Amino acid sequence: MSSSSSIDQPNVITCKAMVAWEAGKDLVMEEVEVSPPQPLEIRVKVICTSLCRTDITAWESQAIFPRIFGHEASGIVESVGEGVTEFVKGDHVLTVFTGECKTCKHCESKKSNMCQVLGLERRGVMHSDQGTRFSVKGKPVYHYCAVSSFSEYTVVHSGCAVKVSPQAPLEKICLLSCGVAAGLGAAWNVADISEGSIVVIFGLGTVGLAVAQGAKLRGASQIIGVDINPEKYEKAKCFGVTDFLNPNEYNEPIQQVIKRISGGGTDYSFECIGNTGMVTTALQSCCDGWGLTVTLGVPKTNPEIASHYSAFLSGKTLKGSLFGGWKPKSDLPSLVNKYMNREIQVDEFITHNLPFEDINKAFTLMREGKCLRCVIHMPN
Amino acid sequence: MSSSSSIDQPNVITCKAMVAWEAGKDLVMEEVEVSPPQPLEIRVKVICTSLCRTDITAWESQAIFPRIFGHEASGIVESVGEGVTEFVKGDHVLTVFTGECKTCKHCESKKSNMCQVLGLERRGVMHSDQGTRFSVKGKPVYHYCAVSSFSEYTVVHSGCAVKVSPQAPLEKICLLSCGVAAGLGAAWNVADISEGSIVVIFGLGTVGLAVAQGAKLRGASQIIGVDINPEKYEKAKCFGVTDFLNPNEYNEPIQQVIKRISGGGTDYSFECIGNTGMVTTALQSCCDGWGLTVTLGVPKTNPEIASHYSAFLSGKTLKGSLFGGWKPKSDLPSLVNKYMNREIQVDEFITHNLPFEDINKAFTLMREGKCLRCVIHMPN
Ligand SMILES: [Zn+2]
Ligand SMILES: [Zn+2]
Ligand SMILES: [Zn+2]
Ligand SMILES: [Zn+2]
Repeated sequence: MSSSSSIDQPNVITCKAMVAWEAGKDLVMEEVEVSPPQPLEIRVKVICTSLCRTDITAWESQAIFPRIFGHEASGIVESVGEGVTEFVKGDHVLTVFTGECKTCKHCESKKSNMCQVLGLERRGVMHSDQGTRFSVKGKPVYHYCAVSSFSEYTVVHSGCAVKVSPQAPLEKICLLSCGVAAGLGAAWNVADISEGSIVVIFGLGTVGLAVAQGAKLRGASQIIGVDINPEKYEKAKCFGVTDFLNPNEYNEPIQQVIKRISGGGTDYSFECIGNTGMVTTALQSCCDGWGLTVTLGVPKTNPEIASHYSAFLSGKTLKGSLFGGWKPKSDLPSLVNKYMNREIQVDEFITHNLPFEDINKAFTLMREGKCLRCVIHMPN
Repeated sequence: MSSSSSIDQPNVITCKAMVAWEAGKDLVMEEVEVSPPQPLEIRVKVICTSLCRTDITAWESQAIFPRIFGHEASGIVESVGEGVTEFVKGDHVLTVFTGECKTCKHCESKKSNMCQVLGLERRGVMHSDQGTRFSVKGKPVYHYCAVSSFSEYTVVHSGCAVKVSPQAPLEKICLLSCGVAAGLGAAWNVADISEGSIVVIFGLGTVGLAVAQGAKLRGASQIIGVDINPEKYEKAKCFGVTDFLNPNEYNEPIQQVIKRISGGGTDYSFECIGNTGMVTTALQSCCDGWGLTVTLGVPKTNPEIASHYSAFLSGKTLKGSLFGGWKPKSDLPSLVNKYMNREIQVDEFITHNLPFEDINKAFTLMREGKCLRCVIHMPN
């Protein structure tokens, strides 16, 4: 009996995963082999995973295939690799697309959540050895954001998972793994919205509405939501949006409308679409002197942000937000507790619950703008 | 005897001014008529005026002529218009290109120095009536920034002048009217540089070196100065520059050099040239997570600032600085006192002292990069 098959040693697990074989083509359910966790990694039984816009952006555009997408997820630790002391089998976790090593210059600074060791992994491999932990019939399958939660089991670096209260419902809090946390953090940590201020949000998807919720909880007096989909307005009201603007209904540039209804420009503007042209509009929508524009989106096309210098000379600031400025391990557990204490809304973002095999429906719903979050429930 | 010639009423003053008749052509000394101050205005006998880069930029490019340039100046109140209670004849003042009305939304906010009533006046007229106070042989002569200090006497809005201690030497503190204050404020108010941080400054003119001084006084550990003129280095050392980089001496992009010598990027970068392409370089030179780029310059060409969105997604911030964030009336008197207490260096920026009739020499010196500040002394 080889040591790798000893009952004390984690083995390869064969399970179901939804594999993307080609850009923009339906995911296919496959039997995948999931390697044991390597040193400092953990293997997680995924419980729920919700579809996030960046999964779609990467699936539509990026060149690394075959690949297992999914990065917004909750699960239970199945086994741990050598040197892992923070987790034991059975721990409840959220996965995160940007990790926290706790020792690099950025993890040690209060001003950054850009871990230099476990940062956003775009090449489809694990941080430690640039390898993959998935294969289908001997062929390696790439990761996404070093999370890859569209699989019954996945392997993540222990720095890319956050232990959460076992009382928290995994089928809800998976949303705090990315989108909802990103929006709340952009409002609270990055913009630090002050009471009574005026806010405009471009794009009323989950991230934009989480910004609205964050703004509302900070006591913003006016929260303007901008979206070309008029169906978004009803839902947006629940999250605090006070004024809804559909740019298609105006013959003048939307920034002019915003300046008018906000009395000269908003205190804060948030670009949550992933459209660099809209970042320029967002800058033009906020006020001189202290107007702050926060860009959260990842653009599909035209990666260049452009603005006339006078926007800055007149006192505006442009800032980016990655994961809302949260340090995942340090900050997510308390965000989960806020949810448990009903201080923040999460359930309201869930518009659909789908079984794992229907994941392609979630892709369609999101591409058609017909959902906020679709939660995918893995088989038991 | 008409009331306008009463000895208690200010009259038209005929005096010498250096008039710009055409873009880029030598100024010509003319006899100008200076109207009495209108309500809320004051007439100032200019004592010293120093040449600032934006005078040259406007003289080279703008379409409003004939015009009297000059905006960095010190002087003595000669007479006051109706309703002026803050000044009396004999008060020592600094002029400012952006005023402080003390009552608008921006003046009332702690976060802005962008007075909405007395902001930067680009059209060459006075704020109150859109008229001019100068004429040559009956022909109106336009103002610059509503200051126009290249004249023995000028009229400014009382909100665009700051009363200063009569002990302060007017031939030195005129530099605090624009450039030196702008640089110090960018370092202190806008960037709020913290101790031990790493700073890079693009452009080692007066504003850039004032940023260096501000950084040094905040305890920055490394101050990198970037300029294509190697003669700047000696002077730069006096103001705290620790590393001098001449981009022409490198075969790689200067941002790569900066990232290398700063260990991954600077904490702060300042664009003091007025080159929007260099703003992009400045963004690329600062570090992920908390890197802050401050743009101070007014570009001559290409007014569009462009940057790849990933600079922002990785946590960088881009901010503008107008007059270093100072509220002129509220803040300049204490800056003058800091100079009097030898807490800041001002004299060291003065490379040339010239009589009024030699003002065109100052233009040449600045265009050739051979001076920091030329102080123009008016005839007694
Ligand atoms: Zn996401
Ligand atoms: Zn780290
Ligand atoms: Zn100036
Ligand atoms: Zn004002």
